[in-house]
Amino acid sequence: MPDPQLQADGARVLADLTTLRGFGAYKSGVHKPTFSEPHMRSLEWLAQRLPEAGLAAEIDGIGNVLGSSPKSGPKLLTGSHLESQNYAGWLDGPLGVVYALEAARVLNPAPGVNGAVEVAAWCDEEGHFGSFLGSRSFVGSLTEADIDAARDRSSGRTMRDALREVGLAGRARATAQRGRHIGYLEAHIEQGQLLEGGGLAIGVVTSIVGIWQYRISFTGEQNHAGTTRMAVRRDAGLALARFCVAIDDRFPGACGPRTVWTTGHITLDPGAPSIIPGRAEMLFQIRDEDPEVIGRLEDLLQDMAAEVSAQGRCRVAIERIRTGAPALMDAGFQQAIEAASATFAGGRSIRMPSGAGHDAQVLATIMPSGMLFVPSIGGISHHWSENTDDADIVTGAKVFVDACRRLLSA
Amino acid sequence: MPDPQLQADGARVLADLTTLRGFGAYKSGVHKPTFSEPHMRSLEWLAQRLPEAGLAAEIDGIGNVLGSSPKSGPKLLTGSHLESQNYAGWLDGPLGVVYALEAARVLNPAPGVNGAVEVAAWCDEEGHFGSFLGSRSFVGSLTEADIDAARDRSSGRTMRDALREVGLAGRARATAQRGRHIGYLEAHIEQGQLLEGGGLAIGVVTSIVGIWQYRISFTGEQNHAGTTRMAVRRDAGLALARFCVAIDDRFPGACGPRTVWTTGHITLDPGAPSIIPGRAEMLFQIRDEDPEVIGRLEDLLQDMAAEVSAQGRCRVAIERIRTGAPALMDAGFQQAIEAASATFAGGRSIRMPSGAGHDAQVLATIMPSGMLFVPSIGGISHHWSENTDDADIVTGAKVFVDACRRLLSA
Repeated sequence: MPDPQLQADGARVLADLTTLRGFGAYKSGVHKPTFSEPHMRSLEWLAQRLPEAGLAAEIDGIGNVLGSSPKSGPKLLTGSHLESQNYAGWLDGPLGVVYALEAARVLNPAPGVNGAVEVAAWCDEEGHFGSFLGSRSFVGSLTEADIDAARDRSSGRTMRDALREVGLAGRARATAQRGRHIGYLEAHIEQGQLLEGGGLAIGVVTSIVGIWQYRISFTGEQNHAGTTRMAVRRDAGLALARFCVAIDDRFPGACGPRTVWTTGHITLDPGAPSIIPGRAEMLFQIRDEDPEVIGRLEDLLQDMAAEVSAQGRCRVAIERIRTGAPALMDAGFQQAIEAASATFAGGRSIRMPSGAGHDAQVLATIMPSGMLFVPSIGGISHHWSENTDDADIVTGAKVFVDACRRLLSA
Repeated sequence: MPDPQLQADGARVLADLTTLRGFGAYKSGVHKPTFSEPHMRSLEWLAQRLPEAGLAAEIDGIGNVLGSSPKSGPKLLTGSHLESQNYAGWLDGPLGVVYALEAARVLNPAPGVNGAVEVAAWCDEEGHFGSFLGSRSFVGSLTEADIDAARDRSSGRTMRDALREVGLAGRARATAQRGRHIGYLEAHIEQGQLLEGGGLAIGVVTSIVGIWQYRISFTGEQNHAGTTRMAVRRDAGLALARFCVAIDDRFPGACGPRTVWTTGHITLDPGAPSIIPGRAEMLFQIRDEDPEVIGRLEDLLQDMAAEVSAQGRCRVAIERIRTGAPALMDAGFQQAIEAASATFAGGRSIRMPSGAGHDAQVLATIMPSGMLFVPSIGGISHHWSENTDDADIVTGAKVFVDACRRLLSA
C-alpha cells in the first residue's frame, strides 16, 4: 500500500461530485445540456478548482476546460465531460472529471512523482450539437465548417449562436501539442451490468466498440386499409416487423460474444391508421469490438434483405449511414489500471470492451489511451435514476489516482 | 330497355366529372381538402347545377349542399361528397355526386316517375376535421360541442374558423325531415380490386364494415444501446415487431372470409438510434361486417397480449379507441341495384361488403340506404393515380339512374 499522501481522498471526491450535482439538479439526477446555465456553472467551478492542483485553467473557444501544468517532466492527460443528456444521471461525465481533478490534486505536488497530471473537461461529449465536438477540436479533427453546421438537436439553435450567448465566441481553440502527453486516461460509469453482476469494482477497458448504423427502407404499396384484401397487400410495415424478428432470430448464430444490435427508430409512411403503409424505415445499429464480426453481420443483413426482395412483396434497401471503427486501448494503460486495482480494489477487476462511445476513442487517435469503469447500479444509464454506490465511487477514485501515479512513474 | 329519355347521359356525366377535376387539379387527380378554395368552388358549381334538375339549392352551415324538390310524391335522397383526401383521386366523392345530379336531371322532369330525386354533397366525408361531420349533422347526431372541438388534422385550424373564413358561419344546419325520404342511395368507386378481378361492372353493397381500432402499448425498459447486453434487454420495439408478426400468423386461423387488419402507425420511445426503446405503441385496426368475427379476433388479441406479458420481458396493454358497428344496406335497395344491373350492365354485378366507410352508414341510421360500386383500376385509392375506365363510369351512371327510377316507382 503506497503512502497515504499519494491516495485519493474519498470524502473530497464525494463532496465535489455532490457540488456538481447541485448545478441543474433534477430529481436524483441532473439536467445540464451543453451550454445551459448549469453546464456553464460546472465549467467555471472546475476552472476555479484547477489552481489548487497546480494547474493553469483555460476555457477555450469550443467550451473545453483545460488545466495545464508548468511542471517539467512527462504529462498525463486525464478528464471526461460535464454536460449531461437531458434529465439524466449525476455521474455520467462528472465522475471522470472529479477523478482527474483529484489525481492532479494528489499527484502534482507529490515529490516522488516525476511529472504532472493535466485535466480536461471535453465539451459536448453527449452530442447535443454534434459528435465529440470538444475532444475532436482538441485533436485537430474538427473544422470551422463543422462548427458552422452544428445545431442543438433539441432546439435547432446553432452552435455559433450558443457560443456567442455564453461568451466563448472569438476565443482560440486549444489543440494538442504533439509529444506533450504520454497518454490519456479517463474514468466513467460502466452504464451496464457486467461489473455489478460479477461483484467486481473496476472495468479495465480493452477497446471502445465500433458503431455501424444503417437506414433500412422497405417499399411496398400504399393502399386503403378497408378495401384491399389481405392476399394482395404489399404492406411495408409488416415487412419491417418481420425483418426485425428475423434479425433477432438469426443474428445470435453469427455474432460475437459481446455484439449488440438495436432498432431504435421506426417510421411507417404515411402513418395513418386507415392506410396500409407503402413505405417503412428503421434505424438499425450494430456494435462490436471486432470489425470482422460486423462485416459478417452486415453480409447477413444483406442476404436477409435479398431474400425479402426475392419474395416480391416488398423491396428492401440497406444504406450504411455511420461507420465507426473500434478504438483499441493501450496495453500499458490496461496494465497500470490492473495493477492499481490489485492494490486498491482487491483485484476485483475485469478486462472488457466499452459498448458506449467516449472521448477516449477520439484521444486514442493521437496518443496512447486508457479507460476504467466503475459499476452502475442496475446498469441504468441516460436516466436521472442512474447511480453508483459511494463505496464503489471511492474505490474507483483510489484506483484511478494510483493508475495515474504508475503511468507517470513508469 | 326503358325509354332512352329515362337513361343517364354518359357524355354529360363524363363532362361534369371533367369539370370538377379542373378544381384543384393535381397530376391526374385533385387536391381539394375540406373548405379549400377548390372545394368551395366545387360546392358552388353543384349549387348552380341543381336548378336544372328541378331542385332548390342550399349550402348549409356545415358545408353540405342540398337540393330539394318542390314536387309531391316520394323523395329519394342521393349523393356523396366533393372534398378529397390530400393529393388524391378525381372520382372519390365526385362520381357519386354527379350520378346523383344526373339521376335528378333525368328523373325529376320525367312524367312517368312518381316522385323526385333529391341531391346532397355531404361535407368532410374524408375527415379533414372530423368523422362524417356533414352527414352526421344532417341526421342530427352532431352537436355544437362536436363542431367546437373539430380541427383540421393537418393545419390545426378550428372548424369554426374555417366556416367563418368561407362565409358559412351563422347559417342554419339543414336536418332530415323525418318521413320525407324513402331512403338514400350512394354510388362510389370500389377502392379495391374485387370487381376488376372478376370482370364485373357493379358492386351491390350488402353492408359497410365495422371498424374497431386499438392502441396497443408495449412497456419494456429504456436503456443504452451499447452497454446493455442482449440477454438482459427488455426491448419494447422488438416486442411490438414480434406482436405484429404473431397477428399476421394467427389471425388467418380466426378471421372471416373478408376480414382485414392493419397496423398503420408505429412509434418507438424515445426513438433514438442509440437507445433501446422502453415504450412502443401501434395503432391497429380490424374491419369486418360481422361483429361476432371482430369479437373473436379481439379475444385472440387479448390472449396474445397476455402471453407476451406472461413471458415477463415486456408488458402489453390493449385499448380499444374506436368501435364502429357495421351498417346493413336495405334489401329493397340491393334488389333495385341488381335489377338495374341486369338491364344496363348485363348482370355483371356482385353482392359485396364495403370495406371503407361512407356517408351511407350515417344515413342508414335514420332511413333505408343502399350503395353501388364501380370498378377501380388496380384497386388504387387515396392516391392521385386513382381511376376508373370511362366505359365503367358510364355503365355505373346508367345503373344508378335506373335503380333510382325503380325505387321511386316501387
